[in-house]
Amino acid sequence: MRIPIIKLFTLTLILSFSVCVAAQEPITPIEPVKEINLAMVELGKKLYFDPRLSKSGFISCNSCHNLSMGGTDNLKTSIGHNWQQGPINAPTVLNSSLNVAQFWDGRAADLKEQAGGPIANPGEMAFTHTLALEVLESIPAYVTEFTRVFGPDCINIDQVTEAIAEFEKTLVTPNSRFDQWLLGDTRAISAQELAGYQLFKSSGCVACHMGPAVGGTSFQKMGLVSPYETKNDAQGLAGVTGKDADRFKFKVPTLRNVDMTYPYFHDGEAATMDEAVDIMGRLQLGRKFEQADIDQIVAFLKTLTGEQPSFVLPILPPSTDKTPQPTPF
Amino acid sequence: MRIPIIKLFTLTLILSFSVCVAAQEPITPIEPVKEINLAMVELGKKLYFDPRLSKSGFISCNSCHNLSMGGTDNLKTSIGHNWQQGPINAPTVLNSSLNVAQFWDGRAADLKEQAGGPIANPGEMAFTHTLALEVLESIPAYVTEFTRVFGPDCINIDQVTEAIAEFEKTLVTPNSRFDQWLLGDTRAISAQELAGYQLFKSSGCVACHMGPAVGGTSFQKMGLVSPYETKNDAQGLAGVTGKDADRFKFKVPTLRNVDMTYPYFHDGEAATMDEAVDIMGRLQLGRKFEQADIDQIVAFLKTLTGEQPSFVLPILPPSTDKTPQPTPF
Repeated sequence: MRIPIIKLFTLTLILSFSVCVAAQEPITPIEPVKEINLAMVELGKKLYFDPRLSKSGFISCNSCHNLSMGGTDNLKTSIGHNWQQGPINAPTVLNSSLNVAQFWDGRAADLKEQAGGPIANPGEMAFTHTLALEVLESIPAYVTEFTRVFGPDCINIDQVTEAIAEFEKTLVTPNSRFDQWLLGDTRAISAQELAGYQLFKSSGCVACHMGPAVGGTSFQKMGLVSPYETKNDAQGLAGVTGKDADRFKFKVPTLRNVDMTYPYFHDGEAATMDEAVDIMGRLQLGRKFEQADIDQIVAFLKTLTGEQPSFVLPILPPSTDKTPQPTPF
Repeated sequence: MRIPIIKLFTLTLILSFSVCVAAQEPITPIEPVKEINLAMVELGKKLYFDPRLSKSGFISCNSCHNLSMGGTDNLKTSIGHNWQQGPINAPTVLNSSLNVAQFWDGRAADLKEQAGGPIANPGEMAFTHTLALEVLESIPAYVTEFTRVFGPDCINIDQVTEAIAEFEKTLVTPNSRFDQWLLGDTRAISAQELAGYQLFKSSGCVACHMGPAVGGTSFQKMGLVSPYETKNDAQGLAGVTGKDADRFKFKVPTLRNVDMTYPYFHDGEAATMDEAVDIMGRLQLGRKFEQADIDQIVAFLKTLTGEQPSFVLPILPPSTDKTPQPTPF
């Protein structure tokens, strides 16, 4: 087949343009997951959905990081064991592998370290690692699956958290309309959405909300220009470092799928994106956005919803007569 | 192709035998679901998984009828709004379309009537139908989907419960090893399992646990021969009919997937199948089973686990700025 020179030239121009777009932007496309241990993912998926890792037998990872709902519970703060009110808004698990650290205060270095936290937190799943392992060891199908993935050792908590983390690594959301635009499809977003992105950049939002996750890469003070008023007790990074200068520094949340991860901020007090953009403008940038500006930015933010994880609901192997029974009440 | 007469004769014998087996047995195979409205099923699946049908925004149908766990919560009695302790064991949703009526006391005639109950029950999802409809009406993707399935009327509770019921009709579990045996595969169950089935029949268990669901077709008194001791207040059918003769009459539960639907009885007090079979023998049949008998019957019961519903976890359309917010605390 012969391609006319003029067409080749146009094609080259388009390709160059695409590459340029992606290369120049402070936000980069989410990459589909690569190099994953599939057997470990399947095990981790079961554990993620298994409420037997909680004292009550009722709360699983998916209870508060619900994969039907953007990897969150869409509550201001979560409901824990015995209906305890959680201290902080549950961050999305989607694209969390791209975070510099885990939790709002970064107290876990990675997903594996994070995964052990809620199981043993008295206000969340309220179990102990020892009891969780006893439950798993009592279920032959789990024992077989752990053996297949990790070898014939007794099940240990490192294996449990590694498997959950491996599953969580698959929870990326590529191919949002914005990523399609980044990759060169100029028609993927509207003029208003593009204007919103330009404003997002020119206003300085992008100083923190950058990279593939549009956030998640740094800790910043909540209330940089004006103080943030909240009844929430969370101290942020200071709780980890002990430094007063780190008070109210929180991990910048990802804005990927932000249309699904309401309500916003570490205290969950911003119910809508309009409200969140307005507050961010005033408190972090010292800028009062007009409603038309907010509309544009929110229109852009809605283009960040990517393909949600798609998988068959796992069927959990049943407990046996030897399985320790849950104690919900 | 010519088939030797002797082979044809053998084939006829095998086929006749298969048909005879199925025809003579008091338990019949679960049939795969037929004549279903697929668009309604997809809508109903979303509703089944949507915790926004509860006051807290945390409890969905799937919380207590968890399709990863045999359509139950595997708790004695369920956890409701504000961690209230439910009054009765959550029956499995699997094969519930085969029940003569719904709930342990049969107070709902069918799945559609059942589905409205927990949403508005103050001890369960603690919402109101009106508020649930307000939530759904505020979400454009739901409005579109209801319109596609039901036409352009406002969303009403009949549509919500009909869609949930249509999804629940798909939750049958065909092709258990026992059904394979019923359909003529003599090698599908072991000699011990077959002996357990023979004992199940000869002891009289099958008088109540019969039909495709191995139960679900009648109400029987719990404690027919000897009284059942329980701290549970449930009165059974008497609460519906007002007749004293119906006290402690409960719907006979299905034994399909019974290996996954522990703990057992309306009060959830039997933790293991061994315990349940022993109690049933003594209280309903006036017979003390030896441990070897129990082992056989339990081996048979484990052959009743069928293919679990297999579907992609639904992604729920996000709330909007107009959606009433949940009130978990």
